[in-house]
Amino acid sequence: MGINYPSGKKYTSQSNLQPQKKLSNTYSNRGMSLETDINETNLYYLSHNLACIHKKPTPIQIVHVEYPKRSAAVIKEAYFKQASTTDYNGVYKGRYIDFEAKETNNKTSFPLQNVHLHQITHMMQVHKQDGITFVIIRFSKLNEIYFLDASHLFLFWKRYEEGGRKSISREELIEFGESIPISYQARVDYLSVVDRLYF
Amino acid sequence: MGINYPSGKKYTSQSNLQPQKKLSNTYSNRGMSLETDINETNLYYLSHNLACIHKKPTPIQIVHVEYPKRSAAVIKEAYFKQASTTDYNGVYKGRYIDFEAKETNNKTSFPLQNVHLHQITHMMQVHKQDGITFVIIRFSKLNEIYFLDASHLFLFWKRYEEGGRKSISREELIEFGESIPISYQARVDYLSVVDRLYF
Repeated sequence: MGINYPSGKKYTSQSNLQPQKKLSNTYSNRGMSLETDINETNLYYLSHNLACIHKKPTPIQIVHVEYPKRSAAVIKEAYFKQASTTDYNGVYKGRYIDFEAKETNNKTSFPLQNVHLHQITHMMQVHKQDGITFVIIRFSKLNEIYFLDASHLFLFWKRYEEGGRKSISREELIEFGESIPISYQARVDYLSVVDRLYF
Repeated sequence: MGINYPSGKKYTSQSNLQPQKKLSNTYSNRGMSLETDINETNLYYLSHNLACIHKKPTPIQIVHVEYPKRSAAVIKEAYFKQASTTDYNGVYKGRYIDFEAKETNNKTSFPLQNVHLHQITHMMQVHKQDGITFVIIRFSKLNEIYFLDASHLFLFWKRYEEGGRKSISREELIEFGESIPISYQARVDYLSVVDRLYF
């Protein structure tokens, strides 16, 4: 399946079903986390003027800083703070993009305990403002990556809160989500899905 | 000379400008820095479902963390990293919003040394993606706040890089920028300007 980047650049896939395995090997050999792959992807998007999307820094509560002479300030005591948003946001063709990325070692479902309430709350706020918001879920063992629009995530979350199942099955992700192509340049090419769904 | 701390520590001004006096007093009595005021404004926007805009955490390079039993992880060595973006971003009516906020104690001009090259570069990338990007400049002593679209900032920056003046005069800000109203609820009501300029 050919995908054109907004730049007009061709995305050349290695045909059919077989390459999935090869790709999978290549991928796992790289030994990269989903976060690393998404950061690389964002760098690719940025350097090709396709999008400007960044990972937010981890929020830290700084308690004590020392200022040694002739060298950089050293933070000597600090604590991790609860984030109030998702990890990634930015702009693509004028639209606001906001997402969270999650990995699981499960093979059959994605446990919702990986998602935090404050992330759902934030995504609901973004959704209200007509931003594009979604979650990227990677099944590490299967090397499958899914894109799930937040509106679906909200429903699975609601089911969970109401005492229903505590996870999203892989089948549900296949049905309600989109598979994200893994390519060499844009490793986790989620913008190809964004293009298809929102533009 | 007063300095505003992000902690919201008291800032006591020696206000003297008659026409602005009352406002200036009210403002300084609150003891708020521009950052605090913008954070409060964003909270107001968020709680009223007007926009979802947050300040990004300060990027920190963590070197050493300790994990004491029965208490939170403590960062024992870390360093401040150079940010690669501006401080604030988010979504308003589906559009991507991205800005930097700066204060000066000058009364006649805004020195461009307050802006960093990486911030300009980032704003240019946002601009290319059709995001709404601007700088909020506060003359602390005058208690005047201006909104300057990034396209104008780029031109002043270019003039500066080409050996021209190292600042933007207050007159230029009045001509090319927009005055931001200070109100009780949305203290630095920059969305009123965004509405006027981009929607």
